[in-house]
Amino acid sequence: MPGNSFGQAFRITTAGESHGPANVVIIDGVPPGIPLSVEDLMVDLNRRRPGQSHIVTQRDESDTPEILAGVFEGRTTGTSVAILIRNQDQRSKDYGNIQDTYRPGHADYSFDAKYGFRDYRGGGRSSARETTVRVAAGVLAKKILKQAFNGQVIGYVTQVGDIKAHIPDPAQVTQAQVETLPSGEPNIIRCPDLVAAAQMIELIEAIRKDGDSIGGAAEVVATHIPAGLGEPVFDKIKADLAKALFSLPAVLGVEYGIGFGCVTMRGSQHNDHFIPAPELAHNGQPGITTDTNRHGGMLGGITTGLPLILRAAVKPTSSLPIEQLTVNKQGEPTTVRTKGRHDPCLLPRFIPMAEAMVAIVLADHWLRWQSQTSKS
Amino acid sequence: MPGNSFGQAFRITTAGESHGPANVVIIDGVPPGIPLSVEDLMVDLNRRRPGQSHIVTQRDESDTPEILAGVFEGRTTGTSVAILIRNQDQRSKDYGNIQDTYRPGHADYSFDAKYGFRDYRGGGRSSARETTVRVAAGVLAKKILKQAFNGQVIGYVTQVGDIKAHIPDPAQVTQAQVETLPSGEPNIIRCPDLVAAAQMIELIEAIRKDGDSIGGAAEVVATHIPAGLGEPVFDKIKADLAKALFSLPAVLGVEYGIGFGCVTMRGSQHNDHFIPAPELAHNGQPGITTDTNRHGGMLGGITTGLPLILRAAVKPTSSLPIEQLTVNKQGEPTTVRTKGRHDPCLLPRFIPMAEAMVAIVLADHWLRWQSQTSKS
Amino acid sequence: MPGNSFGQAFRITTAGESHGPANVVIIDGVPPGIPLSVEDLMVDLNRRRPGQSHIVTQRDESDTPEILAGVFEGRTTGTSVAILIRNQDQRSKDYGNIQDTYRPGHADYSFDAKYGFRDYRGGGRSSARETTVRVAAGVLAKKILKQAFNGQVIGYVTQVGDIKAHIPDPAQVTQAQVETLPSGEPNIIRCPDLVAAAQMIELIEAIRKDGDSIGGAAEVVATHIPAGLGEPVFDKIKADLAKALFSLPAVLGVEYGIGFGCVTMRGSQHNDHFIPAPELAHNGQPGITTDTNRHGGMLGGITTGLPLILRAAVKPTSSLPIEQLTVNKQGEPTTVRTKGRHDPCLLPRFIPMAEAMVAIVLADHWLRWQSQTSKS
Amino acid sequence: MPGNSFGQAFRITTAGESHGPANVVIIDGVPPGIPLSVEDLMVDLNRRRPGQSHIVTQRDESDTPEILAGVFEGRTTGTSVAILIRNQDQRSKDYGNIQDTYRPGHADYSFDAKYGFRDYRGGGRSSARETTVRVAAGVLAKKILKQAFNGQVIGYVTQVGDIKAHIPDPAQVTQAQVETLPSGEPNIIRCPDLVAAAQMIELIEAIRKDGDSIGGAAEVVATHIPAGLGEPVFDKIKADLAKALFSLPAVLGVEYGIGFGCVTMRGSQHNDHFIPAPELAHNGQPGITTDTNRHGGMLGGITTGLPLILRAAVKPTSSLPIEQLTVNKQGEPTTVRTKGRHDPCLLPRFIPMAEAMVAIVLADHWLRWQSQTSKS
Repeated sequence: MPGNSFGQAFRITTAGESHGPANVVIIDGVPPGIPLSVEDLMVDLNRRRPGQSHIVTQRDESDTPEILAGVFEGRTTGTSVAILIRNQDQRSKDYGNIQDTYRPGHADYSFDAKYGFRDYRGGGRSSARETTVRVAAGVLAKKILKQAFNGQVIGYVTQVGDIKAHIPDPAQVTQAQVETLPSGEPNIIRCPDLVAAAQMIELIEAIRKDGDSIGGAAEVVATHIPAGLGEPVFDKIKADLAKALFSLPAVLGVEYGIGFGCVTMRGSQHNDHFIPAPELAHNGQPGITTDTNRHGGMLGGITTGLPLILRAAVKPTSSLPIEQLTVNKQGEPTTVRTKGRHDPCLLPRFIPMAEAMVAIVLADHWLRWQSQTSKS
Repeated sequence: MPGNSFGQAFRITTAGESHGPANVVIIDGVPPGIPLSVEDLMVDLNRRRPGQSHIVTQRDESDTPEILAGVFEGRTTGTSVAILIRNQDQRSKDYGNIQDTYRPGHADYSFDAKYGFRDYRGGGRSSARETTVRVAAGVLAKKILKQAFNGQVIGYVTQVGDIKAHIPDPAQVTQAQVETLPSGEPNIIRCPDLVAAAQMIELIEAIRKDGDSIGGAAEVVATHIPAGLGEPVFDKIKADLAKALFSLPAVLGVEYGIGFGCVTMRGSQHNDHFIPAPELAHNGQPGITTDTNRHGGMLGGITTGLPLILRAAVKPTSSLPIEQLTVNKQGEPTTVRTKGRHDPCLLPRFIPMAEAMVAIVLADHWLRWQSQTSKS
Repeated sequence: MPGNSFGQAFRITTAGESHGPANVVIIDGVPPGIPLSVEDLMVDLNRRRPGQSHIVTQRDESDTPEILAGVFEGRTTGTSVAILIRNQDQRSKDYGNIQDTYRPGHADYSFDAKYGFRDYRGGGRSSARETTVRVAAGVLAKKILKQAFNGQVIGYVTQVGDIKAHIPDPAQVTQAQVETLPSGEPNIIRCPDLVAAAQMIELIEAIRKDGDSIGGAAEVVATHIPAGLGEPVFDKIKADLAKALFSLPAVLGVEYGIGFGCVTMRGSQHNDHFIPAPELAHNGQPGITTDTNRHGGMLGGITTGLPLILRAAVKPTSSLPIEQLTVNKQGEPTTVRTKGRHDPCLLPRFIPMAEAMVAIVLADHWLRWQSQTSKS
Repeated sequence: MPGNSFGQAFRITTAGESHGPANVVIIDGVPPGIPLSVEDLMVDLNRRRPGQSHIVTQRDESDTPEILAGVFEGRTTGTSVAILIRNQDQRSKDYGNIQDTYRPGHADYSFDAKYGFRDYRGGGRSSARETTVRVAAGVLAKKILKQAFNGQVIGYVTQVGDIKAHIPDPAQVTQAQVETLPSGEPNIIRCPDLVAAAQMIELIEAIRKDGDSIGGAAEVVATHIPAGLGEPVFDKIKADLAKALFSLPAVLGVEYGIGFGCVTMRGSQHNDHFIPAPELAHNGQPGITTDTNRHGGMLGGITTGLPLILRAAVKPTSSLPIEQLTVNKQGEPTTVRTKGRHDPCLLPRFIPMAEAMVAIVLADHWLRWQSQTSKS
């Protein structure tokens, strides 16, 4: 049954495999009149692209998108937008070793158990390559947030292995800090704590030399999000954001605000107190905020106007160049070794994916808000 | 826009407030012929019920459900099932103090920001009282899992404050252990580690005397779930399960398998290896399992046949009998104190809610599996 | 799989059988602040009610609704609304004759073929009794249309058997004409052509004496609907309206505008010409209308601002007090005779049902329009 | 809000305009293992193609599809299928005359009213060119029906202007009769009554010489469809089929079975009687059918096992080479003349579109049936 669509009012539907002809996304519900160009899309696609630095996979893909529909004279028309990204590097590999062998940590076995067979080339539909078009859709979602209320979604790496970044105030991190070092060089690990960033890169380089991989964590922060987005029961904004992040490959945990830190807290320590914020008053409404933000910008599943703060745990890449024990399709013991290129740490390229998914949820809930609550 | 439905093939839709006449659920997509009675529903409703022990809220509700539709002569007919649970204790309280005041940690402010006003009585739609009918729907979901493949969903408390339970093997925990002490007395904290259980109860009693509350964590384990459930991209089983748990009140974090523990691991440590499991062979398929279960029974968003293992972080109850700083609707500083009864720790009553949501996701994905993959 | 919900932004979900305890509807996506009372609901429920005149079924039901949720102090809160209508006359009948026998024209056989068994009492879920709660939901939809743009939905009978009403201008028919005769007596057939109305009633009385039933047709007109509602491809407004009307029991055909009359027309005869309508100018937009309305207010699946005009063909009641040939569950020839009360002609009670479904579609598309196109 | 998806279990989502780069469809929920090739798709695409005969539009399009995803080694994988059809003839035309002028009978004005502007080239998203990919998806739907129960969907023209075909038994019409004359020449009008077919062609040729167009009607018949498909309330099979046909451009009316003919009938004349059909007995179920098929194979919104019979009224092409009165964007009177090629009668090319939509609904309801009712 359909599982390739996401969102209710801003809805994306995708198709595509790692080594098929292309990945494609149809984006439905887009407001008319939003400027959209291939160049706009390339900004985040380049941040997700393989080969962007020496600590990510060296697969050769330009990831140049083609806008097939829904844009006329540079603006969205209100009809469904389609974006195509062709796979270029798809015919060169030999997959004999994984056709019949189940790679540990991968979806090879579960796909076979579900469908009876699978497109085994590069992981087929289970490859993170399908996230190219999510990132493209995220560009459009970010534009909607920007236009509606100057909303911004910024992600960054907070931990790689044992190395933790120190981020004094998540809401103050800028895209520039995440992407660029003071020297003007790219911040290839996308961690705004530059001391930690350097250590993370060093660790990843060492891990790669070992033929191994390493896990990590990322934080995504959304600012200028108005109070009132989200639905009270099942489509709580926290629930849709969690689903969005968990729908990304390799995510094993998600938390927001104080997250798992709440387990050991008392209510009197945990509750954020509402306080006056006259500078936020508008439309005759008094300005209200909280003194702290342990609630991560969401209460009762609805935004409070405070910055949304989410964190995700990302497992170490399952593909390893070293030999791993496993079984083949017949259930017989064997070993497998993933030839070729892989990311020793998924985090740097995870950032644009996570930002895209968060932006898509927020754009969706903004359009849902308009549906029910606007006074047009 | 609609946010009161959950699930694609097994879909529940709910309505109801804490102090309105009733809560109601419509369950759509139910296979015909499943036995269902009020007594069946009462089993889990009693586990969720207020007043069940001295460590939970003492609100007086019998929570007796009425089956309004979709059941004939004791069996589901295949048409939509409706279940009604009336509120009994709804007229007795005085809510003057929260009508105009925003309780810290509650949805009062975010509801007003969204809708312009709210049913303030007992939290209205944001009250956990809406979970009554989720638990009722969960009973039907559990029956589907049981009938289809002897599937079972068991939840239990793993941590309250600093007290952690030791659970040697999550897949071996039984419902009896969670519900009943060896003495035959009820296990009111629903923690199968009896030493930890006693300490947790002691802690909760102390916290309550302080007029405070305490957070905790719970684990939900689903066993006998066949490999192949879940969808490859957005509706990964992990994503739908996470959304389900995050849709419950007070959940700030969710993880599965090794969860946040993956952040510091290397791939070579993290990957579970596939091994032969001849005892699982069936229909000409070889039996395959993994040596460890850090993947929590899901790879690529699809079940592997291993037990599903999830954990949720639950914040301390926001309602406190002690005075808290806040503002009123006009944005002016004031204080609020929640009169009356509340749970000093949400965890004991969280267990049946979490089980219900996990069962609903699994029943949904089972029916989705049948739609696409069965050979009827 | 779920088939008991209708609408995307304004979504209704129903449950209930003819002789079960009750019918219930959950209405999701309702804007906050709309006044709603039991009295409001009764207006259309009384128009649908059995026993309202001597030409409809004499089943005894007061159809008094109870608002279970989503309304606080007389106004919708924005959270899901639930409305309950109990069956009162549900235990009195003997259904022995239809338990094992398939009534011609009814869903008895197709239900058994689908589900293996059925709630046979009074038709169970296939009874038109489920439309009570659709009519209740329609009241809320009508209020949304009224509030947003003074929209109005009026239905009336245009044909019973061979007797055709003459309606000079569908857009000029008033609710008063449909409901009340100049004498102040109720217009029990709901046909605004009073000469035809009298003949229709006479025909129905004669048909009933014969122990037979008769078909008919109805027209539904929606006025003051702004241009721009509807979606270009699958959710064309004409497609959603047709589905809405076809979802009602006994509807065998639907057409809009010139309808089947287009088959024999040339394009040059058929096309309506756009003409200036300065009186409709607003917001800097020129006023535009068409000289004729063969297009029934919809072009390309999107409203044009002209009145929407739809017609439905309604079959003669299948339940007949005379003996009909059929088979039993074992496939053996037998006869069946429907005891008790039935409508000799469905049309008078069809009108409020059809109005409700049209209003629900329009409210849904209005909220969808707001989602994508409003400038809040 | 999203309106570019159709179906619940077998779900298609489309994008594309008449003169943009391409049209694309994503098909979700497809069972794995179904053979699918470009050649398979071409069969129906060629039946829909412009330029296939002298009585249809002469636009030059090869309509060669590219399968982008979801098919591996010639079989569907179970993951989402994407099909791309590029527009070739899209840059050659001059649209100056329709950029600012509203063509009568077209969606130009309603699109502008909805979105504020439009892709005016060849009608943009409102062009019937978007049906290319529906027809491609229909091929896959037909394969599912064929494989599951030897189901077949056949459409044909029953009327053009005043010329009516005589079809003794709709269930006996074959694809060969519809497509090919006894001489081996193509049956370019797709009417199996060859006498009427010749007259229809003659009429269309005359109409075209007049610079005019003509309406018509088509019938679609689905055979070997098992009893039990469809949902009792909103997703009645008749309702979904009607929506499917009304979602096609130019359809103004839909009926099934006896259709509008029921209006003048008595119940005793209208009801089909159930009779034994021992030859249909299976799985211990007695064979049951009806003596006549005025019910068009559907009762209570659920199939009965009899052939499904639907009819649609298709308006005359709105584009005319003769001058028509209209207004421009400023609301000023002007005239418009559609240059270039158009279909003088839409019916011949409507047939594969209508078949596709009917097949998609039936495949969807088959997968929905499996979800809820199969015993896998």
